[in-house]
Amino acid sequence: MSKGLPDPQKDFPNWYMQVVNRAGLADHGPVKGTMVIKPYGFQLWENIKNIFDHMIKESGHTNAYFPLLIPKSFFQKEAEHVEGFAKECAVVTHTRLKADKQKGIIVDPESRLDEEVIIRPTSETVIWSMYKKWIQSYRDLPILINQWANVVRWEMRTRLFLRTTEFLWQEGHTAHATEEEAQKETLDILELYRQLAEDYLAIPVFTGLKTESEKFAGADRTYCIEAMMGDKRALQAGTSHNLGQNFAKAFSVKFQTKDNKEEFVWATSWGISTRLVGAVILAHGDNKGLRIPPRIAPIQLVIIPISKNDDQISNIKEYLEPITKGLEETEVRYHIDWTDSSPGFKFNEWEMKGVPLRLEIGPRDIVEGTTILVRRDTGDKISFSREAVIENILILLHESQQQLYDQALTFRNDNTHTTNSYDEFKQIITEGGFVRCGWDGLQKTETVIKDETKATIRCIPFDEQPQGLTCIYSGDPAKHEVIFAKAY
Amino acid sequence: MSKGLPDPQKDFPNWYMQVVNRAGLADHGPVKGTMVIKPYGFQLWENIKNIFDHMIKESGHTNAYFPLLIPKSFFQKEAEHVEGFAKECAVVTHTRLKADKQKGIIVDPESRLDEEVIIRPTSETVIWSMYKKWIQSYRDLPILINQWANVVRWEMRTRLFLRTTEFLWQEGHTAHATEEEAQKETLDILELYRQLAEDYLAIPVFTGLKTESEKFAGADRTYCIEAMMGDKRALQAGTSHNLGQNFAKAFSVKFQTKDNKEEFVWATSWGISTRLVGAVILAHGDNKGLRIPPRIAPIQLVIIPISKNDDQISNIKEYLEPITKGLEETEVRYHIDWTDSSPGFKFNEWEMKGVPLRLEIGPRDIVEGTTILVRRDTGDKISFSREAVIENILILLHESQQQLYDQALTFRNDNTHTTNSYDEFKQIITEGGFVRCGWDGLQKTETVIKDETKATIRCIPFDEQPQGLTCIYSGDPAKHEVIFAKAY
Repeated sequence: MSKGLPDPQKDFPNWYMQVVNRAGLADHGPVKGTMVIKPYGFQLWENIKNIFDHMIKESGHTNAYFPLLIPKSFFQKEAEHVEGFAKECAVVTHTRLKADKQKGIIVDPESRLDEEVIIRPTSETVIWSMYKKWIQSYRDLPILINQWANVVRWEMRTRLFLRTTEFLWQEGHTAHATEEEAQKETLDILELYRQLAEDYLAIPVFTGLKTESEKFAGADRTYCIEAMMGDKRALQAGTSHNLGQNFAKAFSVKFQTKDNKEEFVWATSWGISTRLVGAVILAHGDNKGLRIPPRIAPIQLVIIPISKNDDQISNIKEYLEPITKGLEETEVRYHIDWTDSSPGFKFNEWEMKGVPLRLEIGPRDIVEGTTILVRRDTGDKISFSREAVIENILILLHESQQQLYDQALTFRNDNTHTTNSYDEFKQIITEGGFVRCGWDGLQKTETVIKDETKATIRCIPFDEQPQGLTCIYSGDPAKHEVIFAKAY
Repeated sequence: MSKGLPDPQKDFPNWYMQVVNRAGLADHGPVKGTMVIKPYGFQLWENIKNIFDHMIKESGHTNAYFPLLIPKSFFQKEAEHVEGFAKECAVVTHTRLKADKQKGIIVDPESRLDEEVIIRPTSETVIWSMYKKWIQSYRDLPILINQWANVVRWEMRTRLFLRTTEFLWQEGHTAHATEEEAQKETLDILELYRQLAEDYLAIPVFTGLKTESEKFAGADRTYCIEAMMGDKRALQAGTSHNLGQNFAKAFSVKFQTKDNKEEFVWATSWGISTRLVGAVILAHGDNKGLRIPPRIAPIQLVIIPISKNDDQISNIKEYLEPITKGLEETEVRYHIDWTDSSPGFKFNEWEMKGVPLRLEIGPRDIVEGTTILVRRDTGDKISFSREAVIENILILLHESQQQLYDQALTFRNDNTHTTNSYDEFKQIITEGGFVRCGWDGLQKTETVIKDETKATIRCIPFDEQPQGLTCIYSGDPAKHEVIFAKAY
């Protein structure tokens, strides 16, 4: 266990904060609830971003940029939407500061705006106000636009990456001529989210539908990917919304169909955010710190030269040459730690940062023509000849990616239970874990369970089998099989 | 000339707005002065961004992210800085909306913040408040951080890309142990800006120092790249600031030196923005629309199949196969326009969008084994055999990049004049152009000239030769040779 790091088994929240801090991922900003993403954390986010950006471009989407500032009146246009976001809106009311003899710098009261503007908590309203200008005919459809942006939601209880007043995300906003097409888009994107989570972040997810009470404010249907974190709580890692014609109606966006009729446009929106960095920490971290899956790791391999004097350093440099050449050819992201600290200190530091592989080179390795590779995920320490090391680095990076996924999957499956006893349900929720069970489909049942246990329905999984199930609470025939858990 | 496009010689501002609109680059957002960057415009920005992002990473910089929202009190800490930005600050005062029976949705008065927060107009203050936490010793230096972000400056007179209330940019913020190192960084970055402008955007620039009255609020020295636009006005395309110890003092950021002393940290900051998209339009556009340099063009080659029926289409598809394969192998960014519009319509549209090369393929080409390539920059139309076309596309893209640069350079040189007569100076400024002349170094001279002619000192160029010159206004011996122009 890393010095001073709390045991994740005993104090997961404190462990999380310490890892975020000591791995150099993020810091608190001066305004309450805001976050500074430090270089190492940002590289991790950039890697995730670049992977998903590539995925959506390959599937025909294009990036654009819409304004940060939205007229207040726009929020009035979609009733559910305003209800969902009204309580956490940052409102801009003035546009100038001025010097005041008594009070120093004050807000200039004469700069008050006629209509206040809102910092986007999400961009449906501003985007659909533009789509109204851009869409006339079926020839203008589909529109498949995404933006990478910051949004602000004035949250009361914040935690770095998981819930911050400002966060970074992508928000896709598409417009379609038919309901079917919009539904297909919603599910296609969800599938990309699943791939991103499982194949790159090494986090297994349940895919499914949100219930009415958990869906996005303004959507007809919200689909999600839900993951289990190391404390057995759920984390919503991405959502894809079928918005129906709600925003088209709110902003009067009609188009001329092929057969010359007028119809409202069909819409989707979907997003993932810097929260995913939190998911990586919470899903894979251990008592030594972070464990980052190789495919998204800012540094995949750290090289620690073990030397006592300048002669040894120059020998090591020479010995390393073919290795670094091989790493560059194979595009392994590596870093050599030449700092003055002791090897032990360096081991701890890079383990804390979750670098998947460590290569140690000391004087004896040079004599013997060997190198030592240490895996962050398993701790395994293996010696290879210098000639074989590149090949084995590639193999171990691959294995480590798979191993992190397999571990997370086993953990999730071991902690996902089925039951039809509410007593057992409550016990599982208290001790930690997911419960797959029947639900009668009533919102009041959901509410009572939430009040009594703090567990919510994370999703109605696509592979639900409600036939023959009874509701975990009411005992009535189940309408759906659902997954309950306490969530972040 | 493209149908309905104003003649740039006669009405440059209107021509500019029409090109931005008709090329699909951007649109006005609903809040006054804000901008929607449409997909084609955003791809252009993304290309510029990716090139510069690569440059700064290669030179040891790393990206991070700092909060959008800054406590009002931070602006008070650096006196010049607050004066520079106070008049254009978007101020957040409340955090909730609520329903009101009479007025609909209103700002909840009970959600008023104790201390107002400012949307960043630039991030020096929030970043130096963090650097205070991160820097203790010389070992923590240098810090070479950049962020890609949006900023808000409440501008009165806005124009898409050139001056908008919100814009996208990169802002680098570095911290150094010595004055020399900070100065070197300031100039190294300016050199990267020069390379970006000249080698990629094909825009020749003057590099030099800003005068006191034109420098960044809070800097010791501001360096810039200054370009000439198609109407002979100047555009500041990038600035690099040596901030001295001003922000370190404002935020009490000291470090322990190698010899155990305490010293304030030295700083730089530097930025380029979406304004560069405006520069590309203004520097290269002509009476048919945009002309985009190939190295930054979203689409480098557009293929226009010229077909009258389905048989011909399938022949063209087959004929195109080895060409598109070649384009993919050579990583040329291409697009095939299969839409129903007439060839003439398509030619105009893609010329408007400034795509560097057009490839036309019709039935006769198939018979003859040829293709026709048309250059956007010169209008030259050349026939090549299908076998030779890929090679020639690469050659022509290269030539077109160079040609746009050469044209812009000739234009700038032809319109940059030297004189020591103030009458001649005024005539040149009125008719359009840059004037290189002597200046006595007095701010009042600068002010009088600005009041009388609207021309400002764009920079004191690095290659100035003030010896023997007299001031264009006062006739006194020149302290500097400077470049005067009316500017965007």
